Amino acid sequence: MADRSTNEEQSQSIINLPKVLLHGPPGFSSLLQPPYSLKFHILNNASLPLHHFLANHAHLCSSVAAVLCDGGYPITTDLLSLLPSLRLVVTSSAGTDHVDLEECRRRGVRVAGAGNIFSQDVADLAVALLIDVIMKISAADGCLRKRHGLSWRDFPLGSKLTGKKVGIVGLGKIGLEVAHRLEAFDCMISYNSRSKKPFVSYPFYSSVVELATNSNVLVLCCALNDQTRQMINREVMLALGKGGVIVNVARGALIDEKDLLRCWLEGEIGGAGLDVFENEPLDCEELFSLDNVVLSPHAGFSTLESYIGICQLVGRNLEAFFSNKPLISPVI
Amino acid sequence: MADRSTNEEQSQSIINLPKVLLHGPPGFSSLLQPPYSLKFHILNNASLPLHHFLANHAHLCSSVAAVLCDGGYPITTDLLSLLPSLRLVVTSSAGTDHVDLEECRRRGVRVAGAGNIFSQDVADLAVALLIDVIMKISAADGCLRKRHGLSWRDFPLGSKLTGKKVGIVGLGKIGLEVAHRLEAFDCMISYNSRSKKPFVSYPFYSSVVELATNSNVLVLCCALNDQTRQMINREVMLALGKGGVIVNVARGALIDEKDLLRCWLEGEIGGAGLDVFENEPLDCEELFSLDNVVLSPHAGFSTLESYIGICQLVGRNLEAFFSNKPLISPVI
Repeated sequence: MADRSTNEEQSQSIINLPKVLLHGPPGFSSLLQPPYSLKFHILNNASLPLHHFLANHAHLCSSVAAVLCDGGYPITTDLLSLLPSLRLVVTSSAGTDHVDLEECRRRGVRVAGAGNIFSQDVADLAVALLIDVIMKISAADGCLRKRHGLSWRDFPLGSKLTGKKVGIVGLGKIGLEVAHRLEAFDCMISYNSRSKKPFVSYPFYSSVVELATNSNVLVLCCALNDQTRQMINREVMLALGKGGVIVNVARGALIDEKDLLRCWLEGEIGGAGLDVFENEPLDCEELFSLDNVVLSPHAGFSTLESYIGICQLVGRNLEAFFSNKPLISPVI
Repeated sequence: MADRSTNEEQSQSIINLPKVLLHGPPGFSSLLQPPYSLKFHILNNASLPLHHFLANHAHLCSSVAAVLCDGGYPITTDLLSLLPSLRLVVTSSAGTDHVDLEECRRRGVRVAGAGNIFSQDVADLAVALLIDVIMKISAADGCLRKRHGLSWRDFPLGSKLTGKKVGIVGLGKIGLEVAHRLEAFDCMISYNSRSKKPFVSYPFYSSVVELATNSNVLVLCCALNDQTRQMINREVMLALGKGGVIVNVARGALIDEKDLLRCWLEGEIGGAGLDVFENEPLDCEELFSLDNVVLSPHAGFSTLESYIGICQLVGRNLEAFFSNKPLISPVI
């Protein structure tokens, strides 16, 4: 009897906590761990498609106060309209292109993101992908394991990173981290961005075609939005030139993948290092067949240290919001 | 008749040029190109084992004035004793462990090397191998191509480069280039070397075990000699610890590969990025089977720019020597 009443008390006390709906892949609930997970009433939809879950839990959903979502799980107008009490969206991703920010703003829903948690890892990955492509590291590793006894003479010569003209598309936190690293490799940095940054001396190009014309390498670090979707198209690739390399650690849809494949087949582009793709998980036969492209599974943020960091950050954002304190990493 | 006499004159004039014996793999002769190749009488042994070639060409060999050799082709006491007129060895490699420097010194034979031609490329490769191992880039690329539809959640988490304690073994030109690059990744650099360098502020450890104890990563950049052969043994690996990573861009024999394999199988080491091996070309089944090791075919120098650079450098060294000018990149 004592146990039952304790359980009931516990249930009652959980019910009184702010309701947080998890909107992510299986296993996503591990993102919210004690002590933070104990401070909220967690609704976990991972076992059901979201619309089923919402239909089955209408009584709870009407009082959902926050959504914690993954980058691959959209926060649409439709979803927002099903959650009338929603006041906060926390996304565990650096990008926010999956969140309808305008609709959130209109409804007075605050949004918190990953802040700069992943910036260093993503920049590290960008540099590694770039060196990998131009020095053919993954390709050599794969060949060595398949055909033993090969020496460097069995491989085409790579290219030198030192002195390369690197155009950074999007000079936010990640772009700046990439620039900082590549300066140590004596690369010449220039950039394209919505506007010229007063705090850096790198040459600025207002047009990405112009940036490509003046670069050996493009590193994509910008946000995905209506202005940037498929901005890296055939025209940009031709401007970059036959030996040109594209590294994408931002969002897959920044690149017109059909144009990339065509330019590749026509020998109009030198290589690419891609951590992100138009459709993820990646399942594009043509991309798998390219031999001067290094593929990575949207892994720019998947280090143990950053995972621990994002677990704490999402918890701290939720806690701050419901304690009427400023968000730790606000988006809007 | 006119043609024949021209040919004879040409042959006669070639015979009067300084004789340079090429000691390298098939295709090695492409290293010495015009205008330099026209200034010497080139003896190319590539089609025959060297001792056969020397036996068949005793009349020429007695007057060989210079040897141009590749890093994999030793200049031994035996070879030196077969070339009584030898005055110069030019090696196209950064390392000189294949040249018996003591015997050269004794015989008054000068030696020229690759100088710093490859330093930047080798440092770039060291950084790329390090990020590749800790962020599992080649491994992910290989998996993605084999099993479609994978996402980052299908891979173990990597580790963050930022803040890693990197111990550099050998703080010569390459070691300094590695340190400079890794500072831009906010790594904490320390080093082991024959002696403390007065011009850097990085912490110095006179013992490589002590360096390993205080590091997450070891990057090997030192020369191979009797003091350094197999210096990276089980004791060093245990000091580095279970999560530790070893990157070797110097010489394979710096590492005791048997100890590396054993430590790997026992889970005593985190991973390795290896551009060089005890035996090259690499043909070690056990190494091929390791999944947190990135393999590269001694490719630290194989960029187009560096190849062009070394072609010019070996030619310029030969030209300088036979014009009684100082060597461009002297070793002794």
